Amino acid sequence: MAIIAMKFGGTSVADLDRIRHVAGLVKREVERGNKVAVVVSAMAGETNKLVGWTNEAARPPVEGIPMEGSGGKVLQPIPDQREYDVVVASGEQVTSGLLAITLNAMGVKARSWLGWQVPIETSAVHGSARIEGVPAFEMKRAIEGGEVAVVAGFQGVAPGHRISTLGRGGSDTSAVAVAAGIQAARCDIYTDVDGVYTTDPRIVPKARRLEKIAFEEMLEMASLGAKVLQTRSVEIAMLHRVPTRVLSTFTPDVGGTLLCDEEDIVEKKPVTGIAYSRDEAKITLHKIPDRPGIAASIFGPLADAGVNVDMIVQNVSEDGKKTDLTFTVSRSELARALAAIEKHAAAIGYRDVTHAADVAKVSIIGIGMRAHPGVAQMMFRTLSDKGINIQVISTSEIKVSVLIAEEYVELAVRALHSAYELDAA
Amino acid sequence: MAIIAMKFGGTSVADLDRIRHVAGLVKREVERGNKVAVVVSAMAGETNKLVGWTNEAARPPVEGIPMEGSGGKVLQPIPDQREYDVVVASGEQVTSGLLAITLNAMGVKARSWLGWQVPIETSAVHGSARIEGVPAFEMKRAIEGGEVAVVAGFQGVAPGHRISTLGRGGSDTSAVAVAAGIQAARCDIYTDVDGVYTTDPRIVPKARRLEKIAFEEMLEMASLGAKVLQTRSVEIAMLHRVPTRVLSTFTPDVGGTLLCDEEDIVEKKPVTGIAYSRDEAKITLHKIPDRPGIAASIFGPLADAGVNVDMIVQNVSEDGKKTDLTFTVSRSELARALAAIEKHAAAIGYRDVTHAADVAKVSIIGIGMRAHPGVAQMMFRTLSDKGINIQVISTSEIKVSVLIAEEYVELAVRALHSAYELDAA
Repeated sequence: MAIIAMKFGGTSVADLDRIRHVAGLVKREVERGNKVAVVVSAMAGETNKLVGWTNEAARPPVEGIPMEGSGGKVLQPIPDQREYDVVVASGEQVTSGLLAITLNAMGVKARSWLGWQVPIETSAVHGSARIEGVPAFEMKRAIEGGEVAVVAGFQGVAPGHRISTLGRGGSDTSAVAVAAGIQAARCDIYTDVDGVYTTDPRIVPKARRLEKIAFEEMLEMASLGAKVLQTRSVEIAMLHRVPTRVLSTFTPDVGGTLLCDEEDIVEKKPVTGIAYSRDEAKITLHKIPDRPGIAASIFGPLADAGVNVDMIVQNVSEDGKKTDLTFTVSRSELARALAAIEKHAAAIGYRDVTHAADVAKVSIIGIGMRAHPGVAQMMFRTLSDKGINIQVISTSEIKVSVLIAEEYVELAVRALHSAYELDAA
Repeated sequence: MAIIAMKFGGTSVADLDRIRHVAGLVKREVERGNKVAVVVSAMAGETNKLVGWTNEAARPPVEGIPMEGSGGKVLQPIPDQREYDVVVASGEQVTSGLLAITLNAMGVKARSWLGWQVPIETSAVHGSARIEGVPAFEMKRAIEGGEVAVVAGFQGVAPGHRISTLGRGGSDTSAVAVAAGIQAARCDIYTDVDGVYTTDPRIVPKARRLEKIAFEEMLEMASLGAKVLQTRSVEIAMLHRVPTRVLSTFTPDVGGTLLCDEEDIVEKKPVTGIAYSRDEAKITLHKIPDRPGIAASIFGPLADAGVNVDMIVQNVSEDGKKTDLTFTVSRSELARALAAIEKHAAAIGYRDVTHAADVAKVSIIGIGMRAHPGVAQMMFRTLSDKGINIQVISTSEIKVSVLIAEEYVELAVRALHSAYELDAA
């Protein structure tokens, strides 16, 4: 009699009929003799409505007045983040209560658990809090006593007993963290796709569903642009070794992908999957002094401005005195990054700065890479054969990422998918 | 520098523009040098939507299946009340967060407090819980430190850290209980009318707004059908001597009615106000044995069935053996009351039972009644002059209620309003 965690996203609980369908899946798990914790998102659309309200509430009464510190520009004011969390967390609260009502009406004993009740303890970074612990002792006892626990996803409780939210997609993280907290035998993530694919099936029709994927590979896939699972949820699954399945709410009996330990994967191809991301922008600083401490003078101010820098490449200087440095940030952070660089222009001492947002990142991922030499070389040759120029390269033990012009993304992904023999028969 | 509690109902916070108007009223109070706790209801319409969802969630998947114990009738199943509270309480949560965001955006430091955070401790009777204490020490410190406390009305926390709700209109009760809990100097209930009237202005155009009303009178008015304030809120205001004002959100500077101690009212007319209620039904048991214990055999089963009995009249028996007994219940409880009576028919031993729902209760209320004899007599004569038959009479120290045919309600109220010289000039 195992404890199973199940998670259903916003489209799976979009209305009362779908909530009833979800309740049916939970009931089936109970009838199999399992104890169940089920984590739910807000009904599709609710979160956007609530976020819209918080933005409207934060708007100054008179339109078009520049905000302080905006340099005369009219900015969208940001709502108080702690109160944003209070408003937005209500979406998952409603779903958890409704699913508990539905289960009870079906004769399945159930109760809802909000973030502060579980508790799901988080950091104080409201709006994108980090789960720090799930000491769910009371809830676990209730589950062991035969009651289904319906957990409101996406939310937790921050220091000072304030409601916090984990940021978009946080319900996956809630689910895996709850599964770890109650030592569940498995965490089933029900979603609108039937598993993890070798790449995005929308651009590669020959993409194949993976039966299994190693935690490390899934972590890279998620970080590098595959949108099936949130990165943090994979981190937690990996850290606590929670066997996690991705499967479809609407066809739960076919397919699915199991996230597991590397050792559990028998056949290790050199490349397991191909990810891509269009949310990339490139900044180049020209003719910066080639001296110790120059990197710190650039990336310090960017870190202070809350900009995440991804790939970095520095050319060898021709004369030992001046060099060029290129790095990438997400597109939404480009303006902030440029502002931070310009503010510290004197300290950095570059000649000029250029930027581009029409770039994309394509990555190959596979734990088999460690054992197969020449994997990166095949990537470079494949892209070269298609006439695609590589602007920046970044590698780790199990992935190679390249930055290319955005217009080549589909071509690059399809060519690599074939080159690494991932195409479905 | 006093602490003021303010309360705004659903129509006052119906949308973001109205929430901004409410924030303006709060800001004004802060600028006057007051410390403020503001209690809010859900945005108008939200509670009904959420209640509808809970009912839909509780519906069995196949329509038209009789519920267990329904005697073959298809009943609307009742949602799990604890989960009902989780869903419905989200409405006030959203409003409190949005008002806090709006206040912060206006430069007024504010934070939201949910029922479990304040805490507003209640009984475990989910769906209509009773406030048992408001040990709001942390919140009071925050208010004294200059932060506006935005309290989610209508909700509390029941034993076991479960969310509870107080039942419809509960936000008034939240406001007065919070005012008492933080020793506020005053509780201002902002609503869509500008005060308490001598009677319902919709049926008596000459009704006058009262400048002041004694707690005891307001309690009777609320119990007897005036819908301005919830009965329980007046009870708490009276118990803790919280000076409470009723005033209009939309014209806050004119009018208003102050609930105060009897001693603070100088001119005491015999009758202060006239209330009426159409939510009445009458049950008569014919030819019951005139013996000790007969009342207990009737009202015991009714109490067990959760039926509140209001007025009771027992005729003197003609022969010392058999008598008739009439009592009233609210219309919504009529079917339940009849079922309980019929179930215990043998033990009671009545010959037959009749009932009527086309009755209404009209009441005169006034603390001056104590000092003025003949007040009830004037009521009976006035009704008699209009040809209105009195079916049942019930009195207390400061009120007289009569049950009459419903069709005479408006006529009776208007005639009494004139007779007691309450008409506006």
